[in-house]
Amino acid sequence: MNTPNTLPSPRLLLGPGPSPVHPRVLSAMSAPPIGYLDPELFDLLDEIQAGLRRLFRTENPFTIPVTGTGMAGMEFCLANLVNAGETVVIAINGFFGGRMAEIAARLGANVVRVEHPWGTPVDPARVAAACATAGVVSLVGCVHAETSTGVFSDCQAVAKIARDNGALFLMDAVTSLGGMEVSVDAWGVDAAYSATQKCVGTPPGLAPVTLGARAWEKVMARTTPLSHWFLDAKLLHAYFFTKPATYHHTVPVNAYYALAECLRMIDEEGLENRWARHRANAALLWEQLAAGHSDLTPFAPADCRLPTLNAVRLPPALEPDEAAVRTRLLTDYGIEIGGGFGDLKGKIWRVGLMGHGSESRNVLTLCAALGEVLA
Amino acid sequence: MNTPNTLPSPRLLLGPGPSPVHPRVLSAMSAPPIGYLDPELFDLLDEIQAGLRRLFRTENPFTIPVTGTGMAGMEFCLANLVNAGETVVIAINGFFGGRMAEIAARLGANVVRVEHPWGTPVDPARVAAACATAGVVSLVGCVHAETSTGVFSDCQAVAKIARDNGALFLMDAVTSLGGMEVSVDAWGVDAAYSATQKCVGTPPGLAPVTLGARAWEKVMARTTPLSHWFLDAKLLHAYFFTKPATYHHTVPVNAYYALAECLRMIDEEGLENRWARHRANAALLWEQLAAGHSDLTPFAPADCRLPTLNAVRLPPALEPDEAAVRTRLLTDYGIEIGGGFGDLKGKIWRVGLMGHGSESRNVLTLCAALGEVLA
Repeated sequence: MNTPNTLPSPRLLLGPGPSPVHPRVLSAMSAPPIGYLDPELFDLLDEIQAGLRRLFRTENPFTIPVTGTGMAGMEFCLANLVNAGETVVIAINGFFGGRMAEIAARLGANVVRVEHPWGTPVDPARVAAACATAGVVSLVGCVHAETSTGVFSDCQAVAKIARDNGALFLMDAVTSLGGMEVSVDAWGVDAAYSATQKCVGTPPGLAPVTLGARAWEKVMARTTPLSHWFLDAKLLHAYFFTKPATYHHTVPVNAYYALAECLRMIDEEGLENRWARHRANAALLWEQLAAGHSDLTPFAPADCRLPTLNAVRLPPALEPDEAAVRTRLLTDYGIEIGGGFGDLKGKIWRVGLMGHGSESRNVLTLCAALGEVLA
Repeated sequence: MNTPNTLPSPRLLLGPGPSPVHPRVLSAMSAPPIGYLDPELFDLLDEIQAGLRRLFRTENPFTIPVTGTGMAGMEFCLANLVNAGETVVIAINGFFGGRMAEIAARLGANVVRVEHPWGTPVDPARVAAACATAGVVSLVGCVHAETSTGVFSDCQAVAKIARDNGALFLMDAVTSLGGMEVSVDAWGVDAAYSATQKCVGTPPGLAPVTLGARAWEKVMARTTPLSHWFLDAKLLHAYFFTKPATYHHTVPVNAYYALAECLRMIDEEGLENRWARHRANAALLWEQLAAGHSDLTPFAPADCRLPTLNAVRLPPALEPDEAAVRTRLLTDYGIEIGGGFGDLKGKIWRVGLMGHGSESRNVLTLCAALGEVLA
């Protein structure tokens, strides 16, 4: 984008997101917009909501794309479900668990942080212990797939602990939804949010969210207006679910076109086939690295290793140069991979094989380019 | 959108927004995404920020596209500039002034509402009188172009009153930016927000905002974390302006492609030529209506009548059927126009001639279709 009127350089997006977008989706997104009260828009939203329910594996009526990215989804759930002064227990095993805790604290909650070493999964027993001593717990929050470490946690087990303590369970499904099993109803999840630019496959701009009956009860029990107007679930309900719809904001219809097309493609592929594809390409990545770059090893333990965001532990000798290697991948080969966050900065790479990006050719391309750059 | 995999029906968007999007912009938007830390993204953002500064006519460094729509821009400005317990004076002469007051109240402000009859412009003398009795006023807010009534107000005069009272001045430029003069610096505006789906010309999804030095001072003076994380100006500053950038959220890069292309088209046309085009096509609308539908008259007085959103007063005989007429325009001719809001529901139509939609052919098409439907 060095001069105006040029297209962006070709990029193979194998970082933490956005992931590559299929041409069908880009084409759908470039259709002319229609109005926010057009009857066709509500037909489209019906289709999107049904698709998102299949993706989240839920019957929750309140399942919508929130305008904004995954972080807006996180704030939507916390702002609507946590009142100032309430106690929340947040499991933290990476950057995004920390964000959940930070936002809850900004909302005035009393936050109990259950800290785990980065790179380990959340330990349900530790969450249970924290709940046992925390008094009345309003909400338990947990990240399903930690984008910062490549680790997934057993959210079904954590959800049960939340229920046992009379608390709502909030799940971050940003880096799992569409790439691995996410079963909101079967796991007993009360609220979940995700993003569309990772394993779902659209450009960034929407945050799918779902609220179950217990979460919705909490929303309706609030007697004072929410400080967050744009993310107010009651106001969004009046637009998305009331006939005739009450105007809230001018919804991003082109992002809806993209999301609807992704959801059609997911239905065509089949959700379980899609999970299998993500598993297979992650396995191929580790095979290829083991064969060609044996000093690049998995950071996450095998039993909690994500198939979507693959964290690669770097050998100490490479650490000082790792940023230069990523820059060369980007400038010479057009390949984006991610670096580490926080304590893992300079110590890991994060290779996303998500959505349309989870393809064997991409794994082979990356490994071949790494072979050149690291030679 | 009755069956999956179909494109939306063709629509001529002459309502309150979104407005029609030029094919160049749709094409630009459909380029593949790049990453949120890609150096090319920051080149693109530099270009966008420079273009937005020209559009707002400001030198303010903090001039960015906020992720979300115009309403997110409104909440961004209020949340960052108003602390709980402070007094704000909001001029209200339509729906969106009321929204500003509502959001400020949710943030815990003591809101002084300076109410005007809908369809009249804001009276600076009344704002001055309210400030004189309100004690210490933290912020004065005013809508430049009321989308609900088709009226514009003299924001330069209101800004001076705010300054004279030691208050910040916040301007809503949602339905003016790109379609008529908006001069942030010359008018003494401390903070302004807009949307991109009206006179700027992209699909909905971004809110251009600008904060001047006095507003930024207020942001920096805050000692407690903002309750709004996604819209926190300090966190956004760390992403948009700090080198290296600190990750905040995965920015909607395809919306940026669209905005950059619109800004290029605005530069090509020339800002004053663009304003003149909006004026000319609004004038043509009123001429055509006077000639062919003399009972459809301007709702807004001539001296404060918007050239972007044209409010049409309906004859009493038409009021009971007005919704049916709009439905026929949409279904038989693919033309969207807007109805009235609140007290004006059923009493006015709102005809947007904004951005790429402000074209004489669109005026002629609408008037011809009205001729058929009202025959």
